Amino acid sequence: MRFLDIRDTNFDAEFAAILARGEETGREVEQVVLDIIADVRARGDEALLEYTRRFDRLEADSVAALQVTEDEIEYAFAKVKDEEIAALKLAVERVARFHEKQKQETWLSTTEPDILLGQMVTPLERVGIYVPGGKASYPSSVIMNAVPARVAGVGEIVMVAPTPGGEINPHVLVAARLSGVDRIFRMGGAQAVAALAYGTATVPRVDKITGPGNIYVATAKKLVFGQVGIDMIAGPSEILVINDGSGTPAHIAADLLSQAEHDELASSILITTDRGFGEQVATEVERQLAQLSRETIARTSWETYGAVIVAGSLDEAIAFSNRIAPEHLELAVANPFEILPRIKNAGAIFLGHFTPEAAGDYLAGPNHTLPTGGTARFFSPLSVDDFVKKSSIVYFSAAGLNRLGRDIVSIAEMEGLEAHGRSVSIRLK
Amino acid sequence: MRFLDIRDTNFDAEFAAILARGEETGREVEQVVLDIIADVRARGDEALLEYTRRFDRLEADSVAALQVTEDEIEYAFAKVKDEEIAALKLAVERVARFHEKQKQETWLSTTEPDILLGQMVTPLERVGIYVPGGKASYPSSVIMNAVPARVAGVGEIVMVAPTPGGEINPHVLVAARLSGVDRIFRMGGAQAVAALAYGTATVPRVDKITGPGNIYVATAKKLVFGQVGIDMIAGPSEILVINDGSGTPAHIAADLLSQAEHDELASSILITTDRGFGEQVATEVERQLAQLSRETIARTSWETYGAVIVAGSLDEAIAFSNRIAPEHLELAVANPFEILPRIKNAGAIFLGHFTPEAAGDYLAGPNHTLPTGGTARFFSPLSVDDFVKKSSIVYFSAAGLNRLGRDIVSIAEMEGLEAHGRSVSIRLK
Repeated sequence: MRFLDIRDTNFDAEFAAILARGEETGREVEQVVLDIIADVRARGDEALLEYTRRFDRLEADSVAALQVTEDEIEYAFAKVKDEEIAALKLAVERVARFHEKQKQETWLSTTEPDILLGQMVTPLERVGIYVPGGKASYPSSVIMNAVPARVAGVGEIVMVAPTPGGEINPHVLVAARLSGVDRIFRMGGAQAVAALAYGTATVPRVDKITGPGNIYVATAKKLVFGQVGIDMIAGPSEILVINDGSGTPAHIAADLLSQAEHDELASSILITTDRGFGEQVATEVERQLAQLSRETIARTSWETYGAVIVAGSLDEAIAFSNRIAPEHLELAVANPFEILPRIKNAGAIFLGHFTPEAAGDYLAGPNHTLPTGGTARFFSPLSVDDFVKKSSIVYFSAAGLNRLGRDIVSIAEMEGLEAHGRSVSIRLK
Repeated sequence: MRFLDIRDTNFDAEFAAILARGEETGREVEQVVLDIIADVRARGDEALLEYTRRFDRLEADSVAALQVTEDEIEYAFAKVKDEEIAALKLAVERVARFHEKQKQETWLSTTEPDILLGQMVTPLERVGIYVPGGKASYPSSVIMNAVPARVAGVGEIVMVAPTPGGEINPHVLVAARLSGVDRIFRMGGAQAVAALAYGTATVPRVDKITGPGNIYVATAKKLVFGQVGIDMIAGPSEILVINDGSGTPAHIAADLLSQAEHDELASSILITTDRGFGEQVATEVERQLAQLSRETIARTSWETYGAVIVAGSLDEAIAFSNRIAPEHLELAVANPFEILPRIKNAGAIFLGHFTPEAAGDYLAGPNHTLPTGGTARFFSPLSVDDFVKKSSIVYFSAAGLNRLGRDIVSIAEMEGLEAHGRSVSIRLK
């Protein structure tokens, strides 16, 4: 952990080490993934079965046999505790309710005579949701990807999840059912992404693929982008807490550690106007670290990419926050709504002393898929918008075209596009 | 041109040749572009000046000297005819008015006690607009990229345009000024994209780069994606006209040619339920082709990627359209609004017999930057949405966290993320 002062002359240099934590895709990974994609396009189901055998140690006679059955889902419901099902249901409900508010309507403007202009919103027909396997197989990821798709009105939601050895997390199955996933295939990696992007005899081609994954999955998504839509490419997770000396150091320390336990590359940063408070938080982090089951991961993250920064004023802290555009931003200050309008770049903003980021991770309502690594400058949280597309609507009557025709022809002529102009003038009286 | 019947057994095979027209980026192009990007990151202005000298034959002592001056813009206004300025002004006004309707408001939901949830919409701080040089330097491209950015509230719009030999199209300068562009640099290619993405001593770093360009520009945009936002990667342009035998063959022929004149890779397709009408359109295309200044381009496009398709019914034609997801779709039928709700995938939809696509290209109002090559399945037209980003807002009071805390902890436990749970339980009473 670095204890820094933003007013020090070497601050930028010191902080640069924390920012430089994204993994660059090596050319070798890209070549491996390109080969897998080409193979799945060429040999379809057969290639899928081979890769699943090789990478997931899962044998199957057919891709259809990789599909999760109704019985397996029922078994998962039987296995999961009632209060857990209730918690997942609550999460699905709350996430659905929040995302309902993001829905945009088709509109048609009728304010101008002879001309109608509008925008039609249509759900994607079919989407694929990638859910990582093994330990990172999280029911909350399923909810955060499937629910916005369902709210958007997507026709079919196809989920893929690698299941090393065939085992699939029952909480994930329960979450998938509660979120409205239509089909689940036990497959993962670049091969699953390729199958969703191009379709095989058994796996249907989708219009968009969302969801987190390892470097092979992320690279595959990047490479099929354009053939299908994808959500943002997520990097390691991060949190920035802005503090003014108010609140409880132990609470802030717990929030920093909730981020740090994700993985070694996660970054947890506190920026405070109160040096003493910052010191207390640092002490608390050490104390709490020793009690964590994921201590090793959290400690590595905190030691490598953690920081407590002292700022001269809240203004300085806010400017810093806008510059790094954090994925998660906690405004752990006495008057969080007062500074909200000055936040320009952040994936999700958690206000006040009783809104730990974890609330947003699971069931507050907003999506937990957020732009990382400073990309909140231009990316938005995953939303219903990701699962619809728009078409412009243009209608001119003969009178409308007559009114605007000459100006259209004028611009066509400037551009030397004669046939454009002719398609208008041929219709003019 | 192919004259096909959708009911023929070999239709799909015949049509496949038309669909297979996208250019794949070669590995060599990618390597050249990677090198240019690395060089601009390393040497900044100096590298920019070298590439501009080499590729655009433009000498300058400094990058600042590449910036278009106020005098040059005034000179452009003096050189462009008054009626042309009026036409461009009309386009800017209409495009602005349409895009105003796309603006989304920040919202905060206050329906639940103790918990506030919302979404904050913030304009991007600075964007870069790429405008191709030479013959494809179109004022309409400037308008369609800059106006949505301005309407969104973007802080600064930086435009780049390669100017082989230093010359810049005066219509483009006028359009840039009318659209609210703040600064214009005479530079292009992968080097301009790299400069905008990473910033140099003179060129400011932007948050997003939009606008069309050649294969080097498109590849550069793809490679800097993630460092900055980009708009969709546009392929060659296309139009599909759906017809029911109503209307005038010469009009439809003119519309098909307005697309074909763009470039040799453009694709113009008519699908009609009336074989005789289709034959008349084909004859008309031949007749009009001979009269075009861009005959060679249009003829190559029409002969290679043009088609007249006979369908057994409007239903068949609509299903075909939804399958290929055209960039531009004309519903040249007697009752276009009747079939509108059945259109699922299209960039822009032009309804009726007096709405040639060219109207939408210039000044109807909607954007002319549209998803090509079937990507209307999941991409939307360029819009105000591209120039803002969203942040989720979450506020819990102590009572709110107490109400939901146990369920949050329950999900954290399912996921084995103990520190997530602790950040909540440490605050619970």
